[in-house]
Amino acid sequence: MSSRVPLSTKEDLSIAYTPGVAEVCRAIAADETLAAEYTWTSNLVAVVTDGTAVLGLGDIGPKASLPVMEGKAALFRAFAGVNSVPICLDTTDPDEIVETVTRLAPSFGGINLEDISAPRCFEIERRLESTLDIPVFHDDQHGTAIVTLAALRNAVRVTDRKLGDLRVVVMGAGAAGVAISRALHAAGVGEIVVCDSRGIIHSGREHLNPVKEELATITNPSGLRGDIATALRGAQVLIGVSGGSIDESALEGMADDAIIFALANPTPEVAPEVAHRYASIVATGRSDHPNQINNVLAFPGIFRGALDARATHITEAMKLAAADAIADCVGADLAPGKIVPSPLDPKVSIAVAEAVKAAWEARK
Amino acid sequence: MSSRVPLSTKEDLSIAYTPGVAEVCRAIAADETLAAEYTWTSNLVAVVTDGTAVLGLGDIGPKASLPVMEGKAALFRAFAGVNSVPICLDTTDPDEIVETVTRLAPSFGGINLEDISAPRCFEIERRLESTLDIPVFHDDQHGTAIVTLAALRNAVRVTDRKLGDLRVVVMGAGAAGVAISRALHAAGVGEIVVCDSRGIIHSGREHLNPVKEELATITNPSGLRGDIATALRGAQVLIGVSGGSIDESALEGMADDAIIFALANPTPEVAPEVAHRYASIVATGRSDHPNQINNVLAFPGIFRGALDARATHITEAMKLAAADAIADCVGADLAPGKIVPSPLDPKVSIAVAEAVKAAWEARK
Repeated sequence: MSSRVPLSTKEDLSIAYTPGVAEVCRAIAADETLAAEYTWTSNLVAVVTDGTAVLGLGDIGPKASLPVMEGKAALFRAFAGVNSVPICLDTTDPDEIVETVTRLAPSFGGINLEDISAPRCFEIERRLESTLDIPVFHDDQHGTAIVTLAALRNAVRVTDRKLGDLRVVVMGAGAAGVAISRALHAAGVGEIVVCDSRGIIHSGREHLNPVKEELATITNPSGLRGDIATALRGAQVLIGVSGGSIDESALEGMADDAIIFALANPTPEVAPEVAHRYASIVATGRSDHPNQINNVLAFPGIFRGALDARATHITEAMKLAAADAIADCVGADLAPGKIVPSPLDPKVSIAVAEAVKAAWEARK
Repeated sequence: MSSRVPLSTKEDLSIAYTPGVAEVCRAIAADETLAAEYTWTSNLVAVVTDGTAVLGLGDIGPKASLPVMEGKAALFRAFAGVNSVPICLDTTDPDEIVETVTRLAPSFGGINLEDISAPRCFEIERRLESTLDIPVFHDDQHGTAIVTLAALRNAVRVTDRKLGDLRVVVMGAGAAGVAISRALHAAGVGEIVVCDSRGIIHSGREHLNPVKEELATITNPSGLRGDIATALRGAQVLIGVSGGSIDESALEGMADDAIIFALANPTPEVAPEVAHRYASIVATGRSDHPNQINNVLAFPGIFRGALDARATHITEAMKLAAADAIADCVGADLAPGKIVPSPLDPKVSIAVAEAVKAAWEARK
C-alpha cells in the first residue's frame, strides 16, 4: 500500500492529517454521498469470507483462508485496478456474519463474498443485499454462473443451437450449481435438471432445503427422478460443479454433439479425454486445458463497472450483460476449443466493466 | 494498493491463485502461526473507529470519520512502512464494537483504536486487549500519553528537576487525560491532580464514573477540592487536554519556572504568548509553534516495533520505552524550545520501533 499524497513537509502533514482533514470530514458529515468522492471507498472492495468452503479445501477457517483472499485481491488489482481488503471472519453464524459486514460497510464501496458454504451463503447474500446500499456479490455463485453462461452462449453458437432448445444437466447444488441454474433459467435455457449427491432434484423429494425447493420450481419441468445417468439421457449439456466425479457410463445417453463443462478443481468431474468421446465441446476449470472457465473473467470487471457507475446493487441485468460481454470478447477466434477468452486477456475486464455500467445506467 | 507478485502469465496466476495458493492454505490450517509469515497480516493494522470523538469535531459518525482514518493510514505507511486499513464501524455500542473487532481480527496483525469517545474507549480497549492475541492500542490515549511523557522528561531535564518532585495538573479527564495521568503515575511523577469540567477529581466527589474513581485512587494524594486555580497553586506543570480554555488568572499561582503543555487542537487551552508569561517551557499540539506534541512521534514506531517483535500485546514497559526513545531523539538540541523531536524526523520511528521491540523481548 502507499499514499497518493506526499508527506514530507509540515504543510503536507497539516493537509493530509489535522487540521486540514477536518474540512473533508465536515463536508461528508453534511452530505454522506461525498464519501465516494473524498475517500478511497469508491475503489475499495471487502473480500469477505468465513473460511467454510475454500477452493477444494473445505472448512479451513478464517486464518487459513486468508491466502486465497489475498490472491483474489491481487487479481482485483491486476485485472481491474480495484483495491480490495481480505476480511476473514472468526464466526460462521449467518446472523453474526450479516451483522458484522453491515457494521463495517461504511469503510467499503462493495462487498465480495467468497468461499462461504452453501446453503448459508444464499441467506447471507440475500440479507446483506437488502440491508446495504453498496454492491454485494457472492463470487462463487455469480462469478461462476456468469462465466459458465458466457461459455454456454458461445458453445451453442459453435454447435448452431439455441439456448431455448437445450436440456442442461447441472451436477451439484452448492453455491455454483444453484447460481448457474438460476442464471440459465433467466437466460432462457429450455430445460434444466439439477442433481446433487442424492440424485435428481424434484419437487416431490423429501428434506429439500428452502433453496433446493425453490430450485425445484424452476427446473426439471418433466419431473424426472433418479440418478445422474437418468438426467443425462438425451441432454445436450452437462455442467459439473460438484467437486465429485461422474461415471463414464452416465455420459453414454447424452445427445450427439454434446457439450460438457466439468468444472471441479483441481480434478474435473469427467477427465477431458473421456469427455471428448461424448462431447464436441469440453471446458474445465484448469489452465492446462482449452476453454478454462475461470471467475477472473468476471469479478474484476463486474466490480469495476459497478463502482464506476456508483451502483448500489448488482442487478440480474448487470450479470447477464457481463456474460454477454465475456462471450463477445472471443470474437472471430470462436471455435470448439475457444469458447471463452483467455483469463489473461486484458480486454475482458474492460468490456465487462462497460457492459455492467451500461446495464446499471439503463435500469428502469 | 498493489500486488507484490507478478500476474502476467498463466503460471503466475496458478501460483498466486488456484491451485498454488492451496498449499499455503493447508500449511496455515496445520499451523496458524504461519499466517504471520505467509500473509500480509504481519505488516497490517486495522485503524478502527466508531466516529464518536473525531479530532475536534466530536460525534460525526463512521462515514465522515473516514478521512481521518485514511490520514492515519498514510502516516503509518510514510513513517514506519506499516500497511493499515480504515475500519469505520456503523455502531457505537461497546458490546457490538468488541464483538465486531474480535470477529475481523484474523485479517489483521494489530488494532489501532481511534477517535472513540470516553469513557466507552476504556472498556472497549480493555476487553479487546484481553480477547485478542494481537496488539491493541488506543492512540488517543496512549499515543498522546507517550509523547507527553517524552516531552515532560525533557522539560524536567532542561529545568533541572526530577519527575518525582513535580506536582502536575492534568486538565481534562477524557481518553488523553486519563492515559496521561496513568502514564505519569507509572513513570514516578510525585503528585498528579486531575481536573474535569466539574473541577478537581477527588475520591469524595459524587457521580464519578468507574474510570475517574480509579483515577482518584492514584492522583490527588492531598485530597484537594475545588477548581483549576486551586489545583494549579504551587504546581510546576500544567497539561491541558480538555479542548476547553483556562483563564489566565488560574496560572498566577503556579510555581516559578513552570511548564505548560496546552494541547487542545486547533485552539490551545492557553494561548502560547499568555503561557510564556508564567512558564519557561511551553508546548502545544500545533505545528506553527515550537514543541509540537504530535502522536505521529509515537504510533508508527510503536506498531512497527510490536509487529516486528510479533508481540501479542503492547505492555506498559513498551509504552515507557517508546517515551524514553522519543525523548532521547532530541539529543544535543535539547532546549526550552526543543523538548520533542520534529514530527518529520525519520529517526524517531526507527528509534521507537527498536525500543518497543526490545521492551517486548525483555519481558519476564
